[in-house]
Amino acid sequence: MPEQRPQLNNPIRQRLHEIIFEADTQAGKRFDLLLIVSIVFSVVVVMLDSVAELQVPYGKIFYRLEWFFTLLFTVEYLLRLSCIGRPLKYAGSFYGVVDLLSIAPTYLSLLLPGGKYLLVIRILRLLRVFRVLKLVQYVGEANYLKRALHASRRKIQVFLLFVVLLMVLFGSVMYLVEGPEHGFTSIPRSIYWAIVTMTTVGYGDISPQTDLGQALASLVMILGYGIIAIPTGIVTAELTVFQQLTTQSCPQCSAEGHAPDANHCKYCGAKLNP
Amino acid sequence: MPEQRPQLNNPIRQRLHEIIFEADTQAGKRFDLLLIVSIVFSVVVVMLDSVAELQVPYGKIFYRLEWFFTLLFTVEYLLRLSCIGRPLKYAGSFYGVVDLLSIAPTYLSLLLPGGKYLLVIRILRLLRVFRVLKLVQYVGEANYLKRALHASRRKIQVFLLFVVLLMVLFGSVMYLVEGPEHGFTSIPRSIYWAIVTMTTVGYGDISPQTDLGQALASLVMILGYGIIAIPTGIVTAELTVFQQLTTQSCPQCSAEGHAPDANHCKYCGAKLNP
Amino acid sequence: MPEQRPQLNNPIRQRLHEIIFEADTQAGKRFDLLLIVSIVFSVVVVMLDSVAELQVPYGKIFYRLEWFFTLLFTVEYLLRLSCIGRPLKYAGSFYGVVDLLSIAPTYLSLLLPGGKYLLVIRILRLLRVFRVLKLVQYVGEANYLKRALHASRRKIQVFLLFVVLLMVLFGSVMYLVEGPEHGFTSIPRSIYWAIVTMTTVGYGDISPQTDLGQALASLVMILGYGIIAIPTGIVTAELTVFQQLTTQSCPQCSAEGHAPDANHCKYCGAKLNP
Amino acid sequence: MPEQRPQLNNPIRQRLHEIIFEADTQAGKRFDLLLIVSIVFSVVVVMLDSVAELQVPYGKIFYRLEWFFTLLFTVEYLLRLSCIGRPLKYAGSFYGVVDLLSIAPTYLSLLLPGGKYLLVIRILRLLRVFRVLKLVQYVGEANYLKRALHASRRKIQVFLLFVVLLMVLFGSVMYLVEGPEHGFTSIPRSIYWAIVTMTTVGYGDISPQTDLGQALASLVMILGYGIIAIPTGIVTAELTVFQQLTTQSCPQCSAEGHAPDANHCKYCGAKLNP
Repeated sequence: MPEQRPQLNNPIRQRLHEIIFEADTQAGKRFDLLLIVSIVFSVVVVMLDSVAELQVPYGKIFYRLEWFFTLLFTVEYLLRLSCIGRPLKYAGSFYGVVDLLSIAPTYLSLLLPGGKYLLVIRILRLLRVFRVLKLVQYVGEANYLKRALHASRRKIQVFLLFVVLLMVLFGSVMYLVEGPEHGFTSIPRSIYWAIVTMTTVGYGDISPQTDLGQALASLVMILGYGIIAIPTGIVTAELTVFQQLTTQSCPQCSAEGHAPDANHCKYCGAKLNP
Repeated sequence: MPEQRPQLNNPIRQRLHEIIFEADTQAGKRFDLLLIVSIVFSVVVVMLDSVAELQVPYGKIFYRLEWFFTLLFTVEYLLRLSCIGRPLKYAGSFYGVVDLLSIAPTYLSLLLPGGKYLLVIRILRLLRVFRVLKLVQYVGEANYLKRALHASRRKIQVFLLFVVLLMVLFGSVMYLVEGPEHGFTSIPRSIYWAIVTMTTVGYGDISPQTDLGQALASLVMILGYGIIAIPTGIVTAELTVFQQLTTQSCPQCSAEGHAPDANHCKYCGAKLNP
Repeated sequence: MPEQRPQLNNPIRQRLHEIIFEADTQAGKRFDLLLIVSIVFSVVVVMLDSVAELQVPYGKIFYRLEWFFTLLFTVEYLLRLSCIGRPLKYAGSFYGVVDLLSIAPTYLSLLLPGGKYLLVIRILRLLRVFRVLKLVQYVGEANYLKRALHASRRKIQVFLLFVVLLMVLFGSVMYLVEGPEHGFTSIPRSIYWAIVTMTTVGYGDISPQTDLGQALASLVMILGYGIIAIPTGIVTAELTVFQQLTTQSCPQCSAEGHAPDANHCKYCGAKLNP
Repeated sequence: MPEQRPQLNNPIRQRLHEIIFEADTQAGKRFDLLLIVSIVFSVVVVMLDSVAELQVPYGKIFYRLEWFFTLLFTVEYLLRLSCIGRPLKYAGSFYGVVDLLSIAPTYLSLLLPGGKYLLVIRILRLLRVFRVLKLVQYVGEANYLKRALHASRRKIQVFLLFVVLLMVLFGSVMYLVEGPEHGFTSIPRSIYWAIVTMTTVGYGDISPQTDLGQALASLVMILGYGIIAIPTGIVTAELTVFQQLTTQSCPQCSAEGHAPDANHCKYCGAKLNP
């Protein structure tokens, strides 16, 4: 389709760019909405296709719908490439890669039958949903969360290293205590048990049988139950501090720390800049 | 029963309204208390009726009690309609609909036998309990929670969208990794597994068997264990800020929610009383 | 044993009171320590006695030890009654009742064999441990927690009522959706399932089998996973506010809000009263 | 190897100390990186050695690799001893003991075959990782967490004592209610069940069968679900307060940890720089 590009004069490309990449115009919003509906619908088709009871009677319809959506998204992908200023930059960006991965599995499934279920990666395209839903506020909230998580990443990393060390140690000790005859068949599997237990998931597919093992498991559980307080505390403390600060300062007395909904300085009563 | 209304002169309707809809008078409180006891008792009857061992010997008693309470609540419903100024507005409100749904299943059960268990919806009527239990303070606390949750709704929505995308992706990948022979019979069921795992519920009805599947499941568990910190942090940060606001209201614009160190109203700039 | 009391002259009763009820003197501390060791040891004996493999060979020893500790605690209980000013007030207090319940089961077991395991109630006597472990600070911390929980009790009650209503509703709907053939044998049992799921315990003894049931269960899980944020937020907000305030005010500028470890006013630098 | 030490002249020992114990020089960083890779690799070998399917074909290679790493770490241990000023102090420190325990199991395995899996204790050596990863910031974050946890340790202890008492009591009562025929074979095992339930792990290997037992279990679950709010609240409140403290230090007494609105040092009362 690159041969089409020379035929496009600037206004048409600009109009296409407006519709496909922006969400300010009426047409842009309609396009985004249509896209979201198509994505959701196509993901549902992939899901239903995996259900054996539905595959037998409706398999053919699913097959056709999959190709329909794949061709649709392929056209859209090519249009995106054709109307953007720097197509390579788009193709290499997060959304560009997701857009490509959203159509590739169908073509690949001609060679590898199972691969078509990878189409669910299309769901990542829904992240575009923010653009439609009055984006500014939501993007603001998402950025707020992102910044708080970024600020606490080192503490989280220290915590994670500590937890992983604990899981490896507890898993290994349980392997020695319980042994293969009680389901702890190897150290990696015992570590899997430690993760299942410490995160309080507790499938019960592997569970300690000996008295010593149950005593040790109790310790692991109480630890796992308790130390969730640490990451929660880290994130909360960060969010609380972020929450309490706007970066706005009073034009008269220079005081900071105003609530997000404040119109007047709480110290001197002067009007704040919006 | 609308034919009764013309017989009612104003003072009787007013008295009825006081008893049924208000909780300030002695009679109103007694009525509410009686109502709560009836609701609890009638819900218990519905529950016990569903127990097979009790159904055989006491089924007849349960049947009669159900009709007794249904008739009682029907009379109450009609009285409510008859003594309120705008009956249609009440009938369309949340409580009005709940009140109707609380009696409808018994009548429906004459046609559809299983429907009677829908009577447990009566328990929603207990939300009226706030009116009796020294309402002002409790309603205040409930509103406080509601406002904090409302203020953080966008962040929660962003978080939920993110979590649901993760669940769909992890579920689909696990379907490819484990496959139908290990209980991951379809993508929807694999997503169900991802939800069971990520929320740390962990029934164990479906659990990964392969090494790769267990490694991936470990990742899902640690993620699920950790990211609970995010909604907790969001709600806590919001509540902490609300908590620190004073009950002081502005003498000029009556706005509330001022910080403890505020001298001026943040909305209109008027001086606050110390 | 009330006949002994007249023989006791005041100084002996006072000395006994010092040893048994106080922890300031050397003798009082030793007595408390000995008591704690006896309590732990006697509870361990009761626990081991319940293990079938140990009951056969050591049952006789356990039996004798139980009677030994019961007689010991009986003597202690009578001494407590004899040396306190108002024995009835003590007997009716929380600790007095626990002390009596700690010895009664052994005597009752002469009539009712199984009752002896109720002796584990003795473990509640360990709450006295605070008296020994440098009590002032720990009691302070416990009070701090108690006050924060007390301040947030109404919000917690509102939350609990809301959660219980949800559990009853979800449990009932699941009874209709899944039915007795999938383990949801009655509404109370279905509510039990809803509690197991919403609290993220997830035994897996009852789990949904139908597609609709699993979809509904997914909703219950995500709700249960998410709303834990609410009580956590409530308690945390309360604790954060408590944490940040000492009730101390500056003797010079009357400013409040000093850190617990502050010696000087942070605003004017004046020395604070300790 | 102490006979070697007299041969070492000061500059060589100093250089060795720089490489092995410090991470400031290029050589020191390379050594630490090499050490971390060796530790991870040797732990992976121990883990894989425990997998029966891999043990049969690759057992010999694992055996040789284990001895290779053990000899490597032995040489490193001896070098550490030889180049440090006070070797006994190092040998008795946390890292010294871990270093010894990281090589001992291989030698012990000549006598006790199973003991070799204790080699996973080597993973604790990874705590040294902080030295390499731009240590200052991470150590700062770790210290920050440590200080907050230290400040809240008494509240956590009070909470833990309370929770353990609850677990013992609930476990014992469930033993009486459910009895050995439903899997609650002894009081210790019933306490194990209470821990599994209250921490919301919920294996399902033991679960209540009677109506009374399920009602009681529901109470235990709701309690366990709710009271996680308490340690989370404690840690969060502590971290939030720490978070809000400035990095400002007093110009007179160098004390840190001042509130953002402080004008004077809270310890000595000196004026702080704005």
